[in-house]
Amino acid sequence: MTNPFPVTLDDVHDAAVRLKGVAHRTPVLRSRTLDALVGAQVFVKCENFQRIGAFKFRGAYNAASRLSPEQLARGIAAYSSGNHAQAVALAARELGSTAVIVMPEDTPRSKVEATAGYGAEILTYDRYTGDRVAIGEALAAERGLALIPPYEHPHVIAGQGTAALELLEEVGELDALVVPVGGGGLIAGSATAAKGLRPGIRVIGVEPEAGDDTKRSLAAGERVSIPVPRTIADGQAADIPGELTFSINKRLVDEIVLVSDDEIRAAMRLAFERLKVVIEPSGATPLAALLAGRLDRVPPRIGVIVSGGNIDVERFAELCAPRDGQESAGRRSGE
Amino acid sequence: MTNPFPVTLDDVHDAAVRLKGVAHRTPVLRSRTLDALVGAQVFVKCENFQRIGAFKFRGAYNAASRLSPEQLARGIAAYSSGNHAQAVALAARELGSTAVIVMPEDTPRSKVEATAGYGAEILTYDRYTGDRVAIGEALAAERGLALIPPYEHPHVIAGQGTAALELLEEVGELDALVVPVGGGGLIAGSATAAKGLRPGIRVIGVEPEAGDDTKRSLAAGERVSIPVPRTIADGQAADIPGELTFSINKRLVDEIVLVSDDEIRAAMRLAFERLKVVIEPSGATPLAALLAGRLDRVPPRIGVIVSGGNIDVERFAELCAPRDGQESAGRRSGE
Repeated sequence: MTNPFPVTLDDVHDAAVRLKGVAHRTPVLRSRTLDALVGAQVFVKCENFQRIGAFKFRGAYNAASRLSPEQLARGIAAYSSGNHAQAVALAARELGSTAVIVMPEDTPRSKVEATAGYGAEILTYDRYTGDRVAIGEALAAERGLALIPPYEHPHVIAGQGTAALELLEEVGELDALVVPVGGGGLIAGSATAAKGLRPGIRVIGVEPEAGDDTKRSLAAGERVSIPVPRTIADGQAADIPGELTFSINKRLVDEIVLVSDDEIRAAMRLAFERLKVVIEPSGATPLAALLAGRLDRVPPRIGVIVSGGNIDVERFAELCAPRDGQESAGRRSGE
Repeated sequence: MTNPFPVTLDDVHDAAVRLKGVAHRTPVLRSRTLDALVGAQVFVKCENFQRIGAFKFRGAYNAASRLSPEQLARGIAAYSSGNHAQAVALAARELGSTAVIVMPEDTPRSKVEATAGYGAEILTYDRYTGDRVAIGEALAAERGLALIPPYEHPHVIAGQGTAALELLEEVGELDALVVPVGGGGLIAGSATAAKGLRPGIRVIGVEPEAGDDTKRSLAAGERVSIPVPRTIADGQAADIPGELTFSINKRLVDEIVLVSDDEIRAAMRLAFERLKVVIEPSGATPLAALLAGRLDRVPPRIGVIVSGGNIDVERFAELCAPRDGQESAGRRSGE
């Protein structure tokens, strides 16, 4: 019943053609400090510099660009409290369509405003009593909208794969590619691109310790559900892998490693002070894994996808403040 | 007596050859948000991604690379509390030489450690009673060291000009180039490169309001001294233009505009939250000038040199905290 190859390298190439001139071709940063700390050449693909500040625009735009003119005239729907919301809102605007985004009532105002700023209509729900998928699907059916899910869609996954495609085109051979894992869309697309271009490459996913659903699922050989994770890596707070993404990842992902919230904080600080780039917690997990020595072997050339950078100054400083074992009671400079 | 062309475009090209493979060719970032706010296409040359986190490495390395093997064996001296210290320390190490850096006693520990981390010897002096130029010159004479000044040197100026050279090579035509002004070395090199390649380009310098020595000097037609400025832009706290740099800038710089410390803070926050890059106060002054509408005319294509990104998380958050008119008593998120 399941297509063994729901997304192919050709699909990623097709997505790259659609994204050309619309998405940014993001830079690949190098740092001798980082190389020395890791003991390898590290190539950092900066999707925090992507439009809307995260890779999510790639998948959302690729999926939206394949809708018919009639469908674009009716509009697009999505559910997300995070970067996918802004991604769909911007993709709709770019294509002359409209978007309705379902967000939890307690979504930070800055994210609601950013999404509304791209012209989207926002509907809210209570995250403790409502089911976002059911609400999104009912909304789409009622208004005749096309629903673009955050990862369970071949066009979304193919779009996400274009970041790895660009990275490999730019830097040539890589021994390993290290990618954050949330619902699994980014790594499914990345692995499709990477293994398609370089069959020998190791694809390593990184999850926060509290959110190890994909690691457990790969070990079990089937999708395993965990309690909703508590982690600062809010983009990786999935409690079960996607069905479609897991069907890809169980074939193509070599290994999942875990990082602690403190290791993520340290990676964010290092990125700020040495690389001079702003990375949100979920986006910093691959660097955290390298810096904390979570890889079994450290091969000579490692690619890293930094997935996003959407965090405000205050939250960033709060997360990076020195800690004395107390939750968010860290000292600050000058105090 | 004064050479009317102490630094030429050829000198900048020569420096670029020496820096190839040693300095980073830093990326040029674009942002649709920034373009929309400014009303122009803005090309951001990110010298915060340069080695040691600032453009200063270019000039220091270019000057050091021209020393004789005998001189390199004796060593290099410099005086600086900031990025030039690290730049000379790293340049010396790269060339197999040694460096002695004269720093004020109250230099932040992180800067002392970073400089020492490149293998330099650190000597301190009391900034209220000592004269750093005299101390540096005496030290160099006593130990037979080559003194590399922060800006009053043709090879330093030529090296700094390579950032503008790379920017123009990469993006083609620009109507204006906006550059921070401290001692005047970066803008002297930038203007030499830019006017040499594109005689019609406007070269606009930016100073903090409190540190307008170059603006006053250009208006007076001669070097004017001001009280030591109090500004968050510590890299631009010069109280008089350099003699050599002013001789170049009075011919090649079209205009100096001023920005307030609050405008610099706003530009730093925008760079963090929208561009996802970390910029130190001095480095943010060109963006501040554009965002605050300080240019008389806004031409279609504007290049900006972001000169550095050396600032720690705590200081950054403190500077960017919302203010109620009280010095550093700003509210923070969650408070």
